[in-house]
Amino acid sequence: MRYLDLNCDLGESFGPYRLGEDEAVLAYVTSANVACGMHAGDPVVMRRTVQLCRERGVAVGAHPGYPDLWGFGRRPLPMTPEEVYAFVVAQVGALEAVARAEGVRLQHVKAHGALYNVSARDEATAAAVAEAVRRAWPDAILVVLSGSVSEQVARKAGLRVAREGFCDRGYRRDGSLVPRDQPGAVLTEPHEVASRAVRMAYGEPIDAVDGGQVVVQADTLCIHGDTPGAAELAAAVRAALEEAHVRVQPLGTWL
Amino acid sequence: MRYLDLNCDLGESFGPYRLGEDEAVLAYVTSANVACGMHAGDPVVMRRTVQLCRERGVAVGAHPGYPDLWGFGRRPLPMTPEEVYAFVVAQVGALEAVARAEGVRLQHVKAHGALYNVSARDEATAAAVAEAVRRAWPDAILVVLSGSVSEQVARKAGLRVAREGFCDRGYRRDGSLVPRDQPGAVLTEPHEVASRAVRMAYGEPIDAVDGGQVVVQADTLCIHGDTPGAAELAAAVRAALEEAHVRVQPLGTWL
Amino acid sequence: MRYLDLNCDLGESFGPYRLGEDEAVLAYVTSANVACGMHAGDPVVMRRTVQLCRERGVAVGAHPGYPDLWGFGRRPLPMTPEEVYAFVVAQVGALEAVARAEGVRLQHVKAHGALYNVSARDEATAAAVAEAVRRAWPDAILVVLSGSVSEQVARKAGLRVAREGFCDRGYRRDGSLVPRDQPGAVLTEPHEVASRAVRMAYGEPIDAVDGGQVVVQADTLCIHGDTPGAAELAAAVRAALEEAHVRVQPLGTWL
Amino acid sequence: MRYLDLNCDLGESFGPYRLGEDEAVLAYVTSANVACGMHAGDPVVMRRTVQLCRERGVAVGAHPGYPDLWGFGRRPLPMTPEEVYAFVVAQVGALEAVARAEGVRLQHVKAHGALYNVSARDEATAAAVAEAVRRAWPDAILVVLSGSVSEQVARKAGLRVAREGFCDRGYRRDGSLVPRDQPGAVLTEPHEVASRAVRMAYGEPIDAVDGGQVVVQADTLCIHGDTPGAAELAAAVRAALEEAHVRVQPLGTWL
Repeated sequence: MRYLDLNCDLGESFGPYRLGEDEAVLAYVTSANVACGMHAGDPVVMRRTVQLCRERGVAVGAHPGYPDLWGFGRRPLPMTPEEVYAFVVAQVGALEAVARAEGVRLQHVKAHGALYNVSARDEATAAAVAEAVRRAWPDAILVVLSGSVSEQVARKAGLRVAREGFCDRGYRRDGSLVPRDQPGAVLTEPHEVASRAVRMAYGEPIDAVDGGQVVVQADTLCIHGDTPGAAELAAAVRAALEEAHVRVQPLGTWL
Repeated sequence: MRYLDLNCDLGESFGPYRLGEDEAVLAYVTSANVACGMHAGDPVVMRRTVQLCRERGVAVGAHPGYPDLWGFGRRPLPMTPEEVYAFVVAQVGALEAVARAEGVRLQHVKAHGALYNVSARDEATAAAVAEAVRRAWPDAILVVLSGSVSEQVARKAGLRVAREGFCDRGYRRDGSLVPRDQPGAVLTEPHEVASRAVRMAYGEPIDAVDGGQVVVQADTLCIHGDTPGAAELAAAVRAALEEAHVRVQPLGTWL
Repeated sequence: MRYLDLNCDLGESFGPYRLGEDEAVLAYVTSANVACGMHAGDPVVMRRTVQLCRERGVAVGAHPGYPDLWGFGRRPLPMTPEEVYAFVVAQVGALEAVARAEGVRLQHVKAHGALYNVSARDEATAAAVAEAVRRAWPDAILVVLSGSVSEQVARKAGLRVAREGFCDRGYRRDGSLVPRDQPGAVLTEPHEVASRAVRMAYGEPIDAVDGGQVVVQADTLCIHGDTPGAAELAAAVRAALEEAHVRVQPLGTWL
Repeated sequence: MRYLDLNCDLGESFGPYRLGEDEAVLAYVTSANVACGMHAGDPVVMRRTVQLCRERGVAVGAHPGYPDLWGFGRRPLPMTPEEVYAFVVAQVGALEAVARAEGVRLQHVKAHGALYNVSARDEATAAAVAEAVRRAWPDAILVVLSGSVSEQVARKAGLRVAREGFCDRGYRRDGSLVPRDQPGAVLTEPHEVASRAVRMAYGEPIDAVDGGQVVVQADTLCIHGDTPGAAELAAAVRAALEEAHVRVQPLGTWL
């Protein structure tokens, strides 16, 4: 039996500002990464997002990021490991408390944006994130880029680890993602994206942009909710996976 | 046997900014109210403060406030009860997680500054704070102004409640504090302050500024750490209490 | 010859967040109140907004507010007059510099949200705002609620003053606005709103919600850009005014 | 006749937080770099600092930095040139307006912390800062690290440029500063620091840490106000310069 989780970023609104199509994408995913107030989100939004997830049966995770509201957590901020550790614990702690007060258990933690990317290649940052989860939520799953430094570090820390794949992003032969400013970085054709999702679910190789193929080991696939056509893409992926007899369920139920 | 707790505000530094004489006052208090990052404090400061408390055997509480760094949480911000609830849960959650990761249990919650004062007279705000504690940390103690609306509301919510008294502040006959901009608001003479602390510990009446006397029921006394002579005052209070055979211990050990 | 200005709030986006239909409403107004980064807006948004105004021939004003990003400047923050003064100067200074660097002159200043409303009834706050404009931009026009305390204070300070009217809001006989949570507060029927605009332009009385009529002296009318149907309403108002031979031009060209 | 300016960072307090010995160091310097609210400072502090400078006859400059209150502007934030440009204009605009309202003219602009350091080596960032000054304050002086990329870029932009030297920092033969985490980075012996200041004022070579000597062309020397012994050091430098017949005067009076 093949299991797979579909995750998306959620709760990125802030004060008067709305962002993302939270309601639309919730119909297709099984796990949500909820912003924790430092790169996006605020306590009121966090609570509403958790309630929404609870209603839809979507598992809740925390999505801590660099404290940079202007830059939406997409700019790498040179923080020391001690700072990363403390800021991750505080952010996840805020979200976990809001969720617990709604009767919702924290399933996972996934670093956001630049913090995710820096963790994927920088051992000290990855270790700070892993240490935060290990010390404060030892039962939570840490979602990491499949095959990255952060995967190695998280396993070494003894954490439950979920490997993330991107069915709408181009990969290189070495398993790394094609940077967003290069050709082939983003796939938008629903059929192609859905087909990749199924291949990833079964551990089958996909075409790499630099020739040859690559196997992306994935426990969860990232579904983007803020791009045009996002809901359509999510629907196509979900339908294709179910047709291929993949069990699409929250990580916590099978990992 | 008479028990009493001495509490002080701690961890109010932020980024490059130092505030308060945390080390000095820790020698005299038994509980610390640690700022949670929204009116003061930041995750790194929170962690160091918790570690410091652990070393000194001082119990840790969360000190959530209005999200207003410029105003240090001293300005009443017109927030809805829903907003107060969510912001308190998020702030306490951040601090509690940082503490838990250091092996330190959250003993209590005490609202800071304007949030404390508004809660003391406004039922909706008091209820929002109490609800936050009740839902997310049902075993934690909520520290409230003795005899205030927030005391009533907290008891009604079924919480463990600690009544706070101020041995260095003037009281009126009706049990209310003399506002800071009026004569008799603040006492600075160590002997007088210490003597009041002992009277409060034994439930004996103290002189009111508007004639007559008033009994202030207190489980914990607030020790200020950021005023000149604060450490001296704290030392005098602590010594007087011990001389009077009051057991000065963290709330959680006897309340 | 009758002159009238139409103003709207603009540049309220922030970092990754978009807000308002800036482009749509710019076709109908003659003056823009540009957020200055403390309740909404950021320097990059400020610059783009000024460039947009320049392209469309819309005059630029600064729209300072209470420093409260979460609350969008809609919550009255208890600030001292000294604080209000300094925060207004700093905000307008930021916007004015961004505009000047684009070759655009600051035409006016209008307080935003709660700061506008508090100024309309509280003399100390109104005086702090007026003093900020008088000392730093003595040639700028201060836009105030017609008939309010802030109008009196601004005139007394010797400023150029523009009285603002609201053609889509209900008025009471005494000239005050019907609060938003009461019936009759907001008008949405384009024909009625447009007709009111014309009556205001000619100093003719309009119906009050509490019986009788009221004359609203207006040099500028506020056009809302962030409500459904906003552009349609703006178009109706502008067309009606021009049909009635009112010259719709930026304040600075005729006041 | 030799002229030299002595500058220091000022106005770095924020809300309830005090930082630096502003009063002490003001007795020795001729120019102040005033924080603009995004890495430190706030509008009230900005105003008080400008008033203080006016009283002491110290010239006022703006000290814009990366928007990062937690990190005090000491962490390089990956901003695009467009972002740097807009954030510098907004910050300097805020300070300039506050100063102008006090009857004080903006003499200079000096980037703070990481923005200063990044500008010193990165042409795009340096150009964004220079462009901000050129477009909005063409008469202001831009203070740059002597011999750096930012000096070249500022001259090419046609700005008035002041070269900054550091009499209490170690230099390498190539004219670069010894990084703070390396031996010889900081000098604390008053006599030595003062002697270096005089040599720099007269264009005479100083010893480099890596052997040989280096000439540091300096129009202004940076005096640190927040380190222990700062005032003593400043006094020694000022006294030595005057004894050596160097005219210590604000940049704007002679550059």
